[in-house]
Amino acid sequence: MGGAWIGVSLDPQADAPVYVQLYEQLRDLILRRVLRREERLPSSRLMAAELGVSRATVIAAYDQLVGEGYIAGRAGSGMYVCPLPEETLTVSGAVPRPAPAPATPPRVRPWEEVPGWPPPLQPGEPDCRLFPAAEWSRALAGSWRRPSPRVLGHGETVFGDPALQQALARHLQVWRGIDVTPDQIIITAGAGDGIDLTLRAFVGPGEGVVLENPGYAPARNMVTDRGGVPLDCPVDSSGLCLEGLAALRWAAPVRLAMVTPSRHYPLGYTMPLPRRLGLIDWARQQGAMVLEDDYDSEFRYGGRPLAALASLDHGARVIYLGSFSKVFASGVRLGYLAVPLASVERYRACLQATGPRASLALQPALADFMDSGAYARHLRRMRRVYADRQGVLLQALQEHCADWLTVPEVQPSGMHVVARLSDRLMQRLIQAGPVPPDQQIADRCRTAGVSVRALSGYCRKPVRESGILIGFAAYTPQEIRSAAVKLRMILLSLD
Amino acid sequence: MGGAWIGVSLDPQADAPVYVQLYEQLRDLILRRVLRREERLPSSRLMAAELGVSRATVIAAYDQLVGEGYIAGRAGSGMYVCPLPEETLTVSGAVPRPAPAPATPPRVRPWEEVPGWPPPLQPGEPDCRLFPAAEWSRALAGSWRRPSPRVLGHGETVFGDPALQQALARHLQVWRGIDVTPDQIIITAGAGDGIDLTLRAFVGPGEGVVLENPGYAPARNMVTDRGGVPLDCPVDSSGLCLEGLAALRWAAPVRLAMVTPSRHYPLGYTMPLPRRLGLIDWARQQGAMVLEDDYDSEFRYGGRPLAALASLDHGARVIYLGSFSKVFASGVRLGYLAVPLASVERYRACLQATGPRASLALQPALADFMDSGAYARHLRRMRRVYADRQGVLLQALQEHCADWLTVPEVQPSGMHVVARLSDRLMQRLIQAGPVPPDQQIADRCRTAGVSVRALSGYCRKPVRESGILIGFAAYTPQEIRSAAVKLRMILLSLD
Repeated sequence: MGGAWIGVSLDPQADAPVYVQLYEQLRDLILRRVLRREERLPSSRLMAAELGVSRATVIAAYDQLVGEGYIAGRAGSGMYVCPLPEETLTVSGAVPRPAPAPATPPRVRPWEEVPGWPPPLQPGEPDCRLFPAAEWSRALAGSWRRPSPRVLGHGETVFGDPALQQALARHLQVWRGIDVTPDQIIITAGAGDGIDLTLRAFVGPGEGVVLENPGYAPARNMVTDRGGVPLDCPVDSSGLCLEGLAALRWAAPVRLAMVTPSRHYPLGYTMPLPRRLGLIDWARQQGAMVLEDDYDSEFRYGGRPLAALASLDHGARVIYLGSFSKVFASGVRLGYLAVPLASVERYRACLQATGPRASLALQPALADFMDSGAYARHLRRMRRVYADRQGVLLQALQEHCADWLTVPEVQPSGMHVVARLSDRLMQRLIQAGPVPPDQQIADRCRTAGVSVRALSGYCRKPVRESGILIGFAAYTPQEIRSAAVKLRMILLSLD
Repeated sequence: MGGAWIGVSLDPQADAPVYVQLYEQLRDLILRRVLRREERLPSSRLMAAELGVSRATVIAAYDQLVGEGYIAGRAGSGMYVCPLPEETLTVSGAVPRPAPAPATPPRVRPWEEVPGWPPPLQPGEPDCRLFPAAEWSRALAGSWRRPSPRVLGHGETVFGDPALQQALARHLQVWRGIDVTPDQIIITAGAGDGIDLTLRAFVGPGEGVVLENPGYAPARNMVTDRGGVPLDCPVDSSGLCLEGLAALRWAAPVRLAMVTPSRHYPLGYTMPLPRRLGLIDWARQQGAMVLEDDYDSEFRYGGRPLAALASLDHGARVIYLGSFSKVFASGVRLGYLAVPLASVERYRACLQATGPRASLALQPALADFMDSGAYARHLRRMRRVYADRQGVLLQALQEHCADWLTVPEVQPSGMHVVARLSDRLMQRLIQAGPVPPDQQIADRCRTAGVSVRALSGYCRKPVRESGILIGFAAYTPQEIRSAAVKLRMILLSLD
């Protein structure tokens, strides 16, 4: 290999991928305290040059280290070694293979005691009981105690607080491999505001917008609300179908396709690389844009996700949409876009015409929160907790509901699973009445204090899929198990 | 008179208006400690019945008492006597006529030391240096430390946090005489979001929206952005001209008129009662709505404002728009609508289709802040400070700029004044080039570090008015005086 850095040596011929080797050796250096707490790591660019590997390799290794809490990013100054508990550090030699840390059983109030909390097993909800409230509340109070004009609304651009733009650009680089400058980041009043802004920027009256079918229902309203025409495109187990896309016919230009390639919403499929490239190609040929909605990519439970569409895009066709809803809570209503350089001025013009919507009140605190590493710590903790909970849910479904539902496989990411109905149950419910079978189950669940959603509600004709969306993120193992027992009773009663 | 309440006796024949009599007698009761600290006052409805006067009279008296800090509202439970310093209380008999409290000279950083702060005399800015940051930061941290689902996004309606809806309904009743239930309040992501939502609710493609000319420029973009057609209507010294309104011709229906009756933006005129009634009448005949933008009504420096349009409206035609931008700061991006009961469902449908934009993160804290009286205290303080500063500005303009500008009269409200150009200066500047005279001054000011705005920028053809908008709220007397001297030098150089 070309270079070396404190004895790091990588072998492209070895079984383990190069990024894994790098990750393991860096972790080793940290655990052996060769790299000391608070020490700054070289930038990914520099490290890649030093080691003669691609920058993507270094970023993958850094990402893994961030994900496991060994290193963390800081405002405007790169990656630093995190303070680690003494007992995890080794003096020399053999590195203990750290067992995946068991999720600390969180002590939380039962969901019934949280006013307004949706009953289990509501899909798509983070567990706000585990929110790092004390830490966040300190950051927030700090940013307001001597309020800088940043909180109050001076010195910011229409794109938002510069420090948060910077923190997000770094976050996207480290966690998603997307290479953007802070100037390409636009803070929005939630994901919906980001979609709306993108429609304003690219879609004229009567022009077409491709939507996934099944897909995120409110997107359709947002499109029609702006005078655009929703064009439904079928989805298979690799996400949006390129054949379906090619078959779409619309008299006016098609300006935009809204997709969820990391994890199809709501089915959970991941779009493989060839299709991602095909989609970008389609956009180039059409002169259309692609909006990549990466709504819950933070919660992956293993491995490295496929490169974001936005990171594959060399033709300035992909807009990346992120949100804090699944990390904090939906009420925070903060999201962000990472837009191609070529589109920055177009977005700026839209925002200047009517003014931005995103409050600045939280932005400086959020930037601090991200820069301090507290945000990544919270994500890591939630990953472990949610991974555990998914396991609990799948086991409980297997135990109690397997007679009526096809228990899904373990999902590598996300906050809900989709369970299909058994043929027998389908038949019974079709005979029972005109309401779609999965909706019958969801309705019955609601009256019994169990909150699930019907997949058919996400479908537009001619697509008719049936299944129930079951959330696991927002509830403790005990809450999940007891809801699964209730679900059994409901299914039994419908059988 | 009909009734009496703890010896209150009102004489409709007396010189002083009945509400002033009531205000003085209640103040007397408080100062004499007949009404004790923390004591609850009867509701305005009850008090009006007790005394045989109109409810508006009681509200006017309560308003004055709130404005002067004798009483304050509390969440869901009416008006209470404030704790007052011992020395202001009298044991009996003669009530000391409290001299208007001199504004405490605020100790603040010079504007140059606040990064991003606009130079004097930027119009329309509150002084963020006087923001009650410690108090607010405590309220905010408190609401997040043990975050209720309210902050995180559960248990709220699409209209916002119920406690803030309640606090705002009370605020509107006490300060603006508008009688709405909390269910009629919609929290928005700033005033712009409220305008946009109203356009979505009422205006279809190609339909007309009446705008004031001169008026708030971004409103025009918001209308066209939603496919509506802006119809400019002239303004005279009583605000929007009813003749102009009657003369408007548009092929499609006219659905909305956006007006600033309390204080025309940017000219500062108040719309008199007959015209207000005429405007409501026009709306009724057209089947149109009126959006009453009450953007800075909090800052009135004397007397009682005219009843809000929304309080005169018995035909469900008026939507009231308020904002926290001029109280907190524009970056907070929180505003609110008070909508007629008959329109509540229409707004709800719009919000449900695409989701609300206003962050919940500040709403519970803001509700606490309003309920505790801290909000009203801040408003009262700022009223005194801004009133002083207006006086300083007018005096400084008189002293330094009267050769070139018509120094305006004292304004009863607002955060800026409009100074017209002398005929001679107008002539010189018209000869100097094609740029509008007031814009030439504003441009020259900018390069000299003085921030004023040209009135011509707020006009659409055929209206051509010239003048400069000069702000006073955001700067100390010293800053104002030194900017006025700079302005003099600029005007002198243009002469």
